[in-house]
Amino acid sequence: YFKDVDAFSNALRDLPSPNIEALNAAKNRQEKLTKPPGSLGRLEELALWLASWQGTPTPLLDRIHCLVFAGNHGVVAQGISAYPAEVTTQMVNNFSSGGAAINQICELFSIGLNVEALELDCPTADFTKEPAMSTDECLAALNVGASAIPGDADLVLLGEMGIGNTTAAATLAMASFGGHAEDWVGKGTGLDELGVRRKVEVVSTAYHLHQNQFETPFDIIRCVGGRELAAIAGAIIKARHLKIPVILDGFISTASVAPLARFNMAVLDHTIIAHTSAEPGHKRLVSLLDKSPLLSLDMRLGEGTGAALATGLLRAAIATHNGMATFEGAGVSNRDA
Amino acid sequence: YFKDVDAFSNALRDLPSPNIEALNAAKNRQEKLTKPPGSLGRLEELALWLASWQGTPTPLLDRIHCLVFAGNHGVVAQGISAYPAEVTTQMVNNFSSGGAAINQICELFSIGLNVEALELDCPTADFTKEPAMSTDECLAALNVGASAIPGDADLVLLGEMGIGNTTAAATLAMASFGGHAEDWVGKGTGLDELGVRRKVEVVSTAYHLHQNQFETPFDIIRCVGGRELAAIAGAIIKARHLKIPVILDGFISTASVAPLARFNMAVLDHTIIAHTSAEPGHKRLVSLLDKSPLLSLDMRLGEGTGAALATGLLRAAIATHNGMATFEGAGVSNRDA
Repeated sequence: YFKDVDAFSNALRDLPSPNIEALNAAKNRQEKLTKPPGSLGRLEELALWLASWQGTPTPLLDRIHCLVFAGNHGVVAQGISAYPAEVTTQMVNNFSSGGAAINQICELFSIGLNVEALELDCPTADFTKEPAMSTDECLAALNVGASAIPGDADLVLLGEMGIGNTTAAATLAMASFGGHAEDWVGKGTGLDELGVRRKVEVVSTAYHLHQNQFETPFDIIRCVGGRELAAIAGAIIKARHLKIPVILDGFISTASVAPLARFNMAVLDHTIIAHTSAEPGHKRLVSLLDKSPLLSLDMRLGEGTGAALATGLLRAAIATHNGMATFEGAGVSNRDA
Repeated sequence: YFKDVDAFSNALRDLPSPNIEALNAAKNRQEKLTKPPGSLGRLEELALWLASWQGTPTPLLDRIHCLVFAGNHGVVAQGISAYPAEVTTQMVNNFSSGGAAINQICELFSIGLNVEALELDCPTADFTKEPAMSTDECLAALNVGASAIPGDADLVLLGEMGIGNTTAAATLAMASFGGHAEDWVGKGTGLDELGVRRKVEVVSTAYHLHQNQFETPFDIIRCVGGRELAAIAGAIIKARHLKIPVILDGFISTASVAPLARFNMAVLDHTIIAHTSAEPGHKRLVSLLDKSPLLSLDMRLGEGTGAALATGLLRAAIATHNGMATFEGAGVSNRDA
C-alpha cells in the first residue's frame, strides 16, 4: 500500500473529508426524535460522526472488526517490563485459542477478531542504542497494518500486544509532543517504583539519541516505535482513505498515531479514542490531540479491550438514532407545540 | 410489601449483607486470569460486586430487567418544565409501541422492559402548597415499586418518566442533604435561564414549607417526592432483600434513593449508578453518596437509558471474569514465574 516513504507521506497529507450531506441529513433526522434535543449527549454525537464517515444518515455497525497487532521489542533487554518477552507469543497463542480478555469481549459484542503477529521471532533493535527499525522494516510494518483493514468493515478497532510497548509508546509520545520522560512513563503491566525510574531513563536516553531525526512521522516511528505500533499507524491511514471510522483503544494505540497527528491533526478526524487508560501519559496525550475518550474505567490491558467495550455505546447510539419514533409519528407533544 | 410505615422503616433498617465467601472465591479466580493484576480496572470490580450479591464466584446476567416508573406532578402548575404534563402519558404510549430511546437500547442488549404507570390521571399535589402525597398514597407508590421487582432477575435497572420530576428530584436531594436550591436545580428537559430561576424558587419554597417534616425518609418522599420516585425507593429496598443487584440510572433515580441513603448509607451497597447526568446536581449528589458512576456521556434523558447502556460494561465484566483462560491453562508465563 505504501510503496515507499514518499507514498506514505503523501497518503498522510491528502486525506479525504467526511460527507457533510450525510451529516446534515442525520442531524435533521435527530431533531425529530422523541427526546429533548441533545438529551442523549455523546450518543447523538457518535451517531452523527458515524453518519459523516459512512456517508449515510442511518449508519450501520453490522461488521465491526478488531485488529490486534503484536510485536516484540529489543528495548526489553533494558528491563522495562514486569513480564518476560516470551509472553507476547504466548498471548498471541492465547488469542488463537480464545482465552484472552479481547476474545470474550469480541464474542459478546459480535466483533470479528483478527490478530496480526509481526515477526515475533525478530524483535526490533534496542532503540537506546540504534533505530528500532530500518526504513524497509518500518515500511513493511506500516503495510501490514494497511493490508489488515477489511474493505467492507463498518467500523475498525485497533489494539495491540507487545511486551515492552508502553516504553515505545512513551518515547513516541515524547518524540511527537516533547515534555519530560516522566510525563509519559507509567507502570505498564505492573512495574515497581524502581522499574518506573529505570523506564524513565530508558525513554530519556532513546529520545536524546534520536532527537535530531524526529523531523517526519516516518522517522519517529522508525527510530523509537515498534512493528505493532507502525502497523496501527498504517492501518489508520488506510482506513481513512476507505472512509472507515476507527476506534483507537488506549495509550499505546493513541501513541502510535501521535507522530501522524503531530504533522497533520486532521488524520484523527475519522477516529475516536475508546477510553482513558490508567497509564498516566494517556490523559496528557489525548488532551494534546484534542480528543475526549468515551470511557474512563481505569483499564490498562491493551489488546483492543477498551475499543471493543466502546462498541456497545456506538451500537446504542445508532440503535436510538435509527430506531426511535418521531414526535409526529408517536403523537408526542413537542416543546414548540 | 410494606404494609405500613413501620414495615417500610424496618425494611430499610434490617438490610442483608453481601456474600463474602462468593466474593473471595471470585477474587481467587480473578488472580489466575491471563492479564496483569488489576488491568481490567473497574470491570474487575464489577464482576466482584455481582459475585458478592448473586452469591456465586461466576455471576450471570441472563435476565436483566429494566423497570421504568412513570408519574405526574402537581408542581408542573408552577411552570417548571419545558414540556407540557400530557407528555408523560404520551411517552408511556411511546414505550408501549416501542418508539422511545429505552426501547431501542433494551432490544439491543436483550433487556426485559417493564413500564409501570402510576395513576397518571391523578397527579401528586403541588408540593409548593401541601405535601405531594398522603401517607396512603406514598405507601401505595412504594409498594408498586417493590411489587415490580421480578424475583428471578439477575440484575434490575431502575428508570423513570415524569414531566416535572427533576423539580421533585432536586427537592428530595435538598431535603436529604441540605445545601441551596441553586446547587440542585438544572435545566431538566431544556428550561431557559428564566425557567431555571423559577424552578430554583419553587424548590426553595417547597423545602421551607415542609422542612420541619424531613425527619424520616418516608416523610421526605411523601412531602416532596412523586409516585414514580417513591416506586424507585420501594424497588431498591425490595431488590436488596432479594439480594438482586441494581443499576440506578441518573439524577432522578439517584435522588429517589437519597432520603434512604441519608438514614442508612448501606442501602446503596447493592447498587451502582450508571452515569453522571448532565443535570448539574447529580455530580454533587453522587459525591455525597460516595458513588462513582460508570459512564459520563453528558446524557440527561432518563427512562433508564443510562442504566441500560451500562449493562454492556457489566456483561463484558462477567464475560472476561467467567470466560478467560488462566496463566496455567494457557501456558502464559506469569510475572512471578
